[in-house]
Amino acid sequence: MAVEKSYHMTPEEFRRHGREVVDWIADYYERVESLPVLSRVEPGAVRAALPPRPPQEGEPFAAMLRDLDEVVMPGITHWQSPNFFAFFPANTSGPAILGELLAAGLGVQGMLWATSPACTELETHVLDWLVDMLALPPAFKSSGTGGGVIQDSASSAALSALVAARERATALRSNESGCDGRLVAYVSSQTHSSVEKAVKIAGIGRANLRVVAVDERWAMRPDALAEAIARDRRDGLTPFFAAATVGTTSSNAVDPLREIGAVCRGEGVWLHVDGAMAGTAALCPEFRRLQDGLELADSYCFNPHKWMFTNFDCDCFWVADRTALVRALSILPEYLRNKATESGAVIDYRDWQVPLGRRFRALKLWFVIRHYGIAGLQHHVRRHVELAQRFAAWVERSAAFELVVAPPLNLVCFRHTAGDEFNRELLERVNRSGRLYLTHTTLDGRFVLRLCVGQTTTEERHVAEAWRVLQAEADGLERGAAPQERR
Amino acid sequence: MAVEKSYHMTPEEFRRHGREVVDWIADYYERVESLPVLSRVEPGAVRAALPPRPPQEGEPFAAMLRDLDEVVMPGITHWQSPNFFAFFPANTSGPAILGELLAAGLGVQGMLWATSPACTELETHVLDWLVDMLALPPAFKSSGTGGGVIQDSASSAALSALVAARERATALRSNESGCDGRLVAYVSSQTHSSVEKAVKIAGIGRANLRVVAVDERWAMRPDALAEAIARDRRDGLTPFFAAATVGTTSSNAVDPLREIGAVCRGEGVWLHVDGAMAGTAALCPEFRRLQDGLELADSYCFNPHKWMFTNFDCDCFWVADRTALVRALSILPEYLRNKATESGAVIDYRDWQVPLGRRFRALKLWFVIRHYGIAGLQHHVRRHVELAQRFAAWVERSAAFELVVAPPLNLVCFRHTAGDEFNRELLERVNRSGRLYLTHTTLDGRFVLRLCVGQTTTEERHVAEAWRVLQAEADGLERGAAPQERR
Repeated sequence: MAVEKSYHMTPEEFRRHGREVVDWIADYYERVESLPVLSRVEPGAVRAALPPRPPQEGEPFAAMLRDLDEVVMPGITHWQSPNFFAFFPANTSGPAILGELLAAGLGVQGMLWATSPACTELETHVLDWLVDMLALPPAFKSSGTGGGVIQDSASSAALSALVAARERATALRSNESGCDGRLVAYVSSQTHSSVEKAVKIAGIGRANLRVVAVDERWAMRPDALAEAIARDRRDGLTPFFAAATVGTTSSNAVDPLREIGAVCRGEGVWLHVDGAMAGTAALCPEFRRLQDGLELADSYCFNPHKWMFTNFDCDCFWVADRTALVRALSILPEYLRNKATESGAVIDYRDWQVPLGRRFRALKLWFVIRHYGIAGLQHHVRRHVELAQRFAAWVERSAAFELVVAPPLNLVCFRHTAGDEFNRELLERVNRSGRLYLTHTTLDGRFVLRLCVGQTTTEERHVAEAWRVLQAEADGLERGAAPQERR
Repeated sequence: MAVEKSYHMTPEEFRRHGREVVDWIADYYERVESLPVLSRVEPGAVRAALPPRPPQEGEPFAAMLRDLDEVVMPGITHWQSPNFFAFFPANTSGPAILGELLAAGLGVQGMLWATSPACTELETHVLDWLVDMLALPPAFKSSGTGGGVIQDSASSAALSALVAARERATALRSNESGCDGRLVAYVSSQTHSSVEKAVKIAGIGRANLRVVAVDERWAMRPDALAEAIARDRRDGLTPFFAAATVGTTSSNAVDPLREIGAVCRGEGVWLHVDGAMAGTAALCPEFRRLQDGLELADSYCFNPHKWMFTNFDCDCFWVADRTALVRALSILPEYLRNKATESGAVIDYRDWQVPLGRRFRALKLWFVIRHYGIAGLQHHVRRHVELAQRFAAWVERSAAFELVVAPPLNLVCFRHTAGDEFNRELLERVNRSGRLYLTHTTLDGRFVLRLCVGQTTTEERHVAEAWRVLQAEADGLERGAAPQERR
């Protein structure tokens, strides 16, 4: 068979094409700033440029790179642009990209310790490092009762926490007998939608999800939580899970963990804390007050793939007691049995997550932490917060715009004083300009613009330009002038 | 701020280190064949070689590559070795690795069409291509009532299918009201454990999972399924979901989809079909009989990350009717609202999966299909099947070993005639030899060795060597000789 055509890319070809791709990415980062941030293609345009049938015979690598430039790139919204201020960021960095490349090259499956011990042990080790780096509760360390694991997203972390909480609340009967319609979960009106999704997936039912009132800063009110729990207890229901947030998606509101935690502890309710973006801020001692009370949480997650230069997917999820999590998610068919697992001396991470298979995601996180060091990561968090605060100060000083809430970190919620319709149209014009990309939310029924500073290469000049474009487009809108467009 | 130290890896540094990593991977593929397949480190050995504290200041990239070699590599089980015959394969290829690299470089979030239209449209397009390539039912195409999406794993596909089925069976009430303990799901004793895990997560309860009997070839018996459904109906329960398998994990058994599908259609039960590894075989017309009846399925998945040269994660999941899936998994908070979504003209894949965020995984799949072409992919599937069949023939001709079941494709289940304990010890010796890596299962209560041919660079000589090592270790075990070890 050796003389047959192999079709495979040889190591020599891989070296050549690999360099082409590395250069393509470096070139991309050198020019991404000049590209319109939000893609302008119409629905169906990308597909229309692709051949309707797959190729019968293989094609040269150059053909793929050509189509990448000509077909794919116009359909890209540039999350890595320094002018990207939308949603929460999903930033990345050179060491993260190269860690992902190595993980793809090694191609190992980390479902069991035995299927690549380094994949499991490096993950445990780096998540222990992060407990120290972020000053998280010591119980989250693998040397204690808890431990950390990398999930794909905060959505999956929430689902895993919810199922663990469900098992704990039912004395390990919900996996066996299913849900009984009596379990009740608690969020605030500002909690990320992923918790509602998890509540549905886990068979709890949205009708058993209580939306607790927030205060004037959009933070969950512990007294309202306590009342809701008491009401449900009186109705014979079983409060079992509450999700609190450090830095909500809408406005970066911070729920008071200490007070919420006290309520949950008193009621035996599992407290899950979502610090998806803002959790990164705890790298800096001056921002750790935001997570005060976290030691009362049963589980916690934050996403290095948002604001810590580690490409998606990389959500770090900790539990204070790993027993409930592992009992909830463990399955051991014969074909996965092995001596290491049976010895009890190792972690098998497939028992800490929904899927069975898993990539070697710890590599990229390890690379990022080592490349930047704690000092480098702190530097950038502080820089982003400072830039956002500067933008907020410009808004405050402006006659035409107003702050909606004082920004705790790197997300600024603001609006033009001319009303919802004006802001809606302003957002459209700004995004159409190609010079930046913002998204919106509603707070108190009002349409609010969000500007989040968190992209890797965003500097002061990008934030200043964003402010300039916003003012110019608002002026143009007031005067009825045509919007500006880049290119 | 421009004069401050940036800590970032510059594009020029990225070019340099990127080449180093590309070369490292090419070197790895040139030497992986010579490495002991199964890692030999003891539990804790990798962690013990890592510094207890993260670095305060950044480190040079060379330090990470050094530790990759010295600390990580001894803890790697080499899934990409041509001598890897364990579990199901998780093969990869140059174009897949480079597609993953590009996805990491672009760093886009494909949760909504608008957040990178190309990410969504290329995915839809390639999954439509695959419907043709694998001769799947036309209803699975996005131009019909269905459509495809890339999930991380067959586990997540099963969970998504289960939740969609749950919503359909309860007239869209289970998301709202939670599970009621009356829904019943069906698997066979050979179905992958991920379905049981999904049943638990979704609040159905393991007690409501029926394990249907299999025939002498380990395939689900449609008559037993029909009986189980009838019994549950008599008991006032609601049969709602059945999982059938094309190529089970233990023995590659193929459930009779046409008969099972007829039962499910008649009973209004959602039929999910899992072709995780064996589904790839349908690239070749001569193997398509294995999926006969698939047009009766409501959902289907197979994993290009197993046997189609696309690195993990890449599970392709199709539904015949996307309405139930989207209704089950859709959530639309204000901060994700946008014009494209509201127009109804686009797909937002966050409504087709559990997590919100998603990588641009279609890139690597597109690269693989274009690099190999249909002809190249078919060539390798046929080659792997031929090698496995050849191995099976050697086993059959041997006096000491026996086939446990005739292998339908590329997985051979066999054992030494000397009994369970002998086989268990033989497996240990073979894996300890470093020359190959096998895993086991139990069938009919007997300990069975599994040899699966599916790694990218496995050739006849590797399979022949595996057979030689197995025979030599069996001889040594009979004679009481010490096991052989590589290195």
